[in-house]
Amino acid sequence: MTNQNRLNGKNAEGKRNSKKRYVTYRKASEKKSLRPPKAKETVSIAFLGGMNEIGKNMTVYEYGSDMFIVDCGLAFPDSDLPGVDIVIPDFSYVEKNAEKIRGVIITHGHEDHIGGLAYLLKKVNIPIYATKLTIGLIKGKLEEHNLLGDVKLVEIKPRDNITLGSFNIEMIHVNHSIPDAVGLAIRCPAGVIIQTGDFKIDTTPVDGDMIDLPRFAEYGKRGVLALLSDSTNAERPGYTMSEKTVGESFELLFRKAKNKRIVVATFASNIHRVQQIIDVAQSRGRKVAVIGRSLENLVNVGSELGYLNVPEGILIDINLIKNYPDEKLVIITTGSQGEPMSALTKMAFDEHRKVSISPNDYVIISATPIPGNEKMVGNVVNELMKHGVDVIYEKMYEVHVSGHACQEELKLMMGLVKPKYFIPVHGEQKHLQKHASLGIAMDIKPENIFIGSIGNKIELSDDCIKTLENVPAGEIYVDGLGVGDVGSIVLNDRKHLSRDGIIIVVATIDSASGSVVSGPDIVSRGFVYVRENEELMNSARNLACRVIDEIYDSNYHDWNSVKTRLRDEISRMMYEKTKRSPMILPILMEI
Amino acid sequence: MTNQNRLNGKNAEGKRNSKKRYVTYRKASEKKSLRPPKAKETVSIAFLGGMNEIGKNMTVYEYGSDMFIVDCGLAFPDSDLPGVDIVIPDFSYVEKNAEKIRGVIITHGHEDHIGGLAYLLKKVNIPIYATKLTIGLIKGKLEEHNLLGDVKLVEIKPRDNITLGSFNIEMIHVNHSIPDAVGLAIRCPAGVIIQTGDFKIDTTPVDGDMIDLPRFAEYGKRGVLALLSDSTNAERPGYTMSEKTVGESFELLFRKAKNKRIVVATFASNIHRVQQIIDVAQSRGRKVAVIGRSLENLVNVGSELGYLNVPEGILIDINLIKNYPDEKLVIITTGSQGEPMSALTKMAFDEHRKVSISPNDYVIISATPIPGNEKMVGNVVNELMKHGVDVIYEKMYEVHVSGHACQEELKLMMGLVKPKYFIPVHGEQKHLQKHASLGIAMDIKPENIFIGSIGNKIELSDDCIKTLENVPAGEIYVDGLGVGDVGSIVLNDRKHLSRDGIIIVVATIDSASGSVVSGPDIVSRGFVYVRENEELMNSARNLACRVIDEIYDSNYHDWNSVKTRLRDEISRMMYEKTKRSPMILPILMEI
Repeated sequence: MTNQNRLNGKNAEGKRNSKKRYVTYRKASEKKSLRPPKAKETVSIAFLGGMNEIGKNMTVYEYGSDMFIVDCGLAFPDSDLPGVDIVIPDFSYVEKNAEKIRGVIITHGHEDHIGGLAYLLKKVNIPIYATKLTIGLIKGKLEEHNLLGDVKLVEIKPRDNITLGSFNIEMIHVNHSIPDAVGLAIRCPAGVIIQTGDFKIDTTPVDGDMIDLPRFAEYGKRGVLALLSDSTNAERPGYTMSEKTVGESFELLFRKAKNKRIVVATFASNIHRVQQIIDVAQSRGRKVAVIGRSLENLVNVGSELGYLNVPEGILIDINLIKNYPDEKLVIITTGSQGEPMSALTKMAFDEHRKVSISPNDYVIISATPIPGNEKMVGNVVNELMKHGVDVIYEKMYEVHVSGHACQEELKLMMGLVKPKYFIPVHGEQKHLQKHASLGIAMDIKPENIFIGSIGNKIELSDDCIKTLENVPAGEIYVDGLGVGDVGSIVLNDRKHLSRDGIIIVVATIDSASGSVVSGPDIVSRGFVYVRENEELMNSARNLACRVIDEIYDSNYHDWNSVKTRLRDEISRMMYEKTKRSPMILPILMEI
Repeated sequence: MTNQNRLNGKNAEGKRNSKKRYVTYRKASEKKSLRPPKAKETVSIAFLGGMNEIGKNMTVYEYGSDMFIVDCGLAFPDSDLPGVDIVIPDFSYVEKNAEKIRGVIITHGHEDHIGGLAYLLKKVNIPIYATKLTIGLIKGKLEEHNLLGDVKLVEIKPRDNITLGSFNIEMIHVNHSIPDAVGLAIRCPAGVIIQTGDFKIDTTPVDGDMIDLPRFAEYGKRGVLALLSDSTNAERPGYTMSEKTVGESFELLFRKAKNKRIVVATFASNIHRVQQIIDVAQSRGRKVAVIGRSLENLVNVGSELGYLNVPEGILIDINLIKNYPDEKLVIITTGSQGEPMSALTKMAFDEHRKVSISPNDYVIISATPIPGNEKMVGNVVNELMKHGVDVIYEKMYEVHVSGHACQEELKLMMGLVKPKYFIPVHGEQKHLQKHASLGIAMDIKPENIFIGSIGNKIELSDDCIKTLENVPAGEIYVDGLGVGDVGSIVLNDRKHLSRDGIIIVVATIDSASGSVVSGPDIVSRGFVYVRENEELMNSARNLACRVIDEIYDSNYHDWNSVKTRLRDEISRMMYEKTKRSPMILPILMEI
C-alpha cells in the first residue's frame, strides 16, 4: 500500500490540516528552471458529502466567481443515531456563497443524490438541472415540502451541454439501477473534469442504451484533468452482471412457482426491476399489484413519463387481489431490506392489513442486504419460512445485481478517461483506498490521487493538486420537523435512556424553611418493572430523604448542590445494587 | 419444498399445538395387523434453547424417571433488546423436574453452550460432565459467580461412557473452532440418539485428531433412532476449509508485513488460531503480546491445561511492547466483530491506553462478521485505514475458516449415522429448513424430519415421532445483576425513550383547594436541546397550566384523569409542532 505517499485529507471537524498543503512533488529537473512558471488556471472542488462516507452526496465546483453543485443527497441514519429520520449535509458553505452558485446538477433520482434538495432550497433558491425522470422524482419531493412553484427545474438530456457561468457541462449517459442516470464532463478554462456519478457498464441494459463509453473515451483522448469516480463496489473483483440476468432468473422462478402466488420484494426506485417483473408476469398471464407508498409513486411517475411500459389492464388494485386466484397474481412490494415498517415485514409478521401470507406464497427477495441490514432481512426470511412459504433470497439465484461498477469496470473507466488526477468518491475509507489502489494499478501516480473527507477543498491545475483550507461540512440530523435541533447532547441522552432508563426523584420544598413538604417521590421508566422491585424503589426514596434532610440540617440551601448530591448518591446506590446506571433526574419544586 | 408434509412445531408462546399430535403415517399394510402392537419404549426430548434460534443451546432428554441436560448456553442480545447484557434460557422446566435431573453434559466451551450454566446452578445443583478444557473454562465462569466449591465437576474424555440413570452416553471427538469438543451417542432402551454438538470435519486439524467418524459410522451400522445435527452452516454449499489453511495464510501475511508491527484480531475462544499465530510468530522471531481479558484468560487456561503450546519467553506483557521494535512484535487482540468496547475498536479510535496505531501497523482481522456486525466491523476497518494502516479483512485472504460443517459435511454425517429420525438443531428457521432439505436429499423421509422451536417436546420410539405438550421455554434477560427483571414493558419504554426522549410535566398541588402551588414545570431529556427551543417548552408549560386550571375550575379533582389529559394534550401538541412523540410523564405532587 502507498498510504504514506498519498494525500490523505482530514475531516472538517478535525481541522488539523486547515493550512494550505502542497501535495505534488515537482521533479528535481523542474526545480532548476529559472523562469517563474506562468500562473496556471485553477479550478477547485469542495466535498460537502459522499466523501469518506456512503450517502448524502454533494460536491461544489468553483472557478473564478462561479460555483455550481453536483447532487444534494441524504443519508440514512446508523443505529447510533436513535430517533433520527434522515441525515443531510451542512449547507452553510453554500449559504455563504449563495450569490456565486449558478445551479445544481443532479446525476440521477436516488435518495442519496436528491434527498437533501428540499432542505437546501429552503435556504437558497437555485435552479436545478436534471434528466426527465430525475426531474419527475424531484417534483414529488418538492411537492411534499410545498416548494414546487418556487423552484426553476430545467430538463436536460444526455449529450446536452449547459453553461453555468464559466463552466460548460455535458451530460453523459451511464447505466445504473435507475434509468436516466448521467455522468458529467465539466469544462472550464482550467481543464476538463469527469464526474461519473453512480454507474455500471451494462452492455445489455433493460432500457436499451449502453453507457456512452465513446463519449468518455473522446474526452480521454483530448485530455482530462481529473476523474471523480464511483467507489461503491471498489472492493468487488470482476464485473457487475447485467440487469437482464435478473429477468432471466425471474422467468425461471415464475415457472418454478407453479400455481403459487408470487411476491417480489425490491428497491422502490428500481424501475428496470419492476419492468422485468411486469414483463414476466404478462408473459405468464398474471396480474400485478403494487404495495408500498414509494413503489406506487415510482410506478406512477415511471409510467407517466414513459420509463415504465405497463400493458393495459395488468395492474390491479391491492384491494382487489381477493378476486383473483393465487396463480394469477404477482405482488410487488417494498421491504427488501427487512425494514420494520415495510410491507413485506408486516406480511411476514402477520401484521399487514391487506395481504395474508400462506404456504401457497412464493416470495422472491430481489435485493442484497445493505451492510447493517443482514439481521433484519434474516428475521423476515425466518418468519416467512415459519409460515411454510418458499423464500428465494440472497445468492440462491441471480435475483439481484448491483447498480455499481466492480473493479474491472472501474479500471476500464480509468483506462478510457486517462485522467491526470484521480479522486475516488462515493465510498467509505476502505472503498476509496481500494479504488485508489486500482488507480495505481492503472499507472496513475500515487501523488496524483486524492483521498479526502467531507469538508476538504482542493485546487487543481495542470501543474498540481493541492488542498485548500477546509470548508464547513458535517451531518445535520432531521427528526420529524426538526432540522438540526437534535445534536450530540440529545443523542447521548437517548442512548443513555435506551440502555438503562431513567429515575426521577421529585420533591417539593418550602423555600423559606427548606423543609420538604411533599415527596421525595421516585418515578422510573425503562429501568425495572417497579411492582416487582418496590424494595429497591423504597431504598432510593429513603436515600433521597436522607440527602435532603442532611442538607436541610446543614442550613445550606443551595438547590443545585442538593441535586448534584441526589444524582451522585442515588446513582452510586443503584449501581451497587443492580450494576446498572440509569439516568438520575432530580427535580426540586419550590413553594 | 415439502413444508406441508413436514412436522412444523410451534413456539411455546403460541401454544397452538399443545395437544398431542401424531406425525408419522403408518403404511396401509401395517394398519391391517390384527394383533395390538407391543408398546414400544419411548424417549423424549425437550428443546429449551438453540432450536429455531442461534444461541443459548439447551436440550433435555427424558427416559422413564431419568432426565439429563445437554449444554446450557447464553445468547447475545439483538439491537432490539437495549441495555440487556445477555439472554439465557427459561429454566422453569428444569426446576420443576429437579429431582429427575441426573446431570448436565457440556459438548464444548463456547459461550452459547456454557454461558447459562452459572445461572442454572444457582437454581438447581446438578453435576456437570465435560472434557478437560471445557471444565477449565467452566471453572472460570463458576469462580466469577462464587459457585466453584459447590458444584460437582466431572472430567470426561472422548470414547468415555457415563451413566446417568437409565441413560448411557458416549463422548465422541469432533472438530470445531475450540479444542476438546465432543458429540454424544445417547443410549437408552428406546434406542440410540446421536447429537453432534457443533462440529466440522477437519482432516488436518491443528490439534492433531480428526473427528472420530469411525465411531459415528459404527453407531450408524448398528442403527440410530435419531440424529440431532448442527445447522449453523446449512446454507453454505461445499466443505468448510481446514483450520490449517489459516496458518498458511498467516505465514504469507507475516512475510508481507515485512518490518511492520502485526496486530491480529480473532475470537477470544479460538485456541487453534492463537496457536497458529504463536507458531508463525516464533518462526519469524517475533514476540507475542495478548490484549483483552477473555483472550488473556484463554491463553492462561489453554497453556495451563496443555492445549496451547507456548514456547518459553515468547509471550510478553502488553506494557512492555515499547521495549521491542515493531518488526519484533505480534499483538493478538479481541475485537474481531467491531465490538464497541473491544481492544481493537479502541485502538482504531485512538482510545486504547496501551497501544497506539500508526502506519507501521499491519492489522489482520482473522474472523468473519457475524450477521448484524458487518457495519461495526466496517467502521473499525475504515478508522484503521484512516491511520494509514494496512488492514487485511473479510475475504481478501484465507484468514478465517468456520468451525461449523457445510452442506457436504452435513450430508456425510447423515450418510454415516443413517438415522431413522432427523432433527436439525442449532439454527434459525432458514438454517433448519435448509438442513431438512439436505436430509430429504439423503433419502430421509420428510415425515421423519422434525423442525421445531424452543418449548417443543417430542417423543420418539421405533414406531413413531410425535410432539407432546409444550414445556415452558423462553428468553430471560440479564441486565447487570438483574435476572429476568427486565421485560417487555421496560424494553418498550427504553425503545420509546431512545427514539424521542422524555418530557416530564411536574406540578405541586394543594390537595385541599386543588390549586397549583408550584409549577407546572417542564423538564425534558433526549427530546430537543432546550436552550434553543425555549418557545416550545413555554407552550408546553402554558398548555399544562390550562389543563390543570380547567380541571380545577370544574371542581373535579381526580388526579389520574388530570394526568391522562396532560399526557394526551401535550403529546398531541408536541406531535403537531415537531412530528415527534416523546414519552410524556406527568407527575403531580400533593401537599
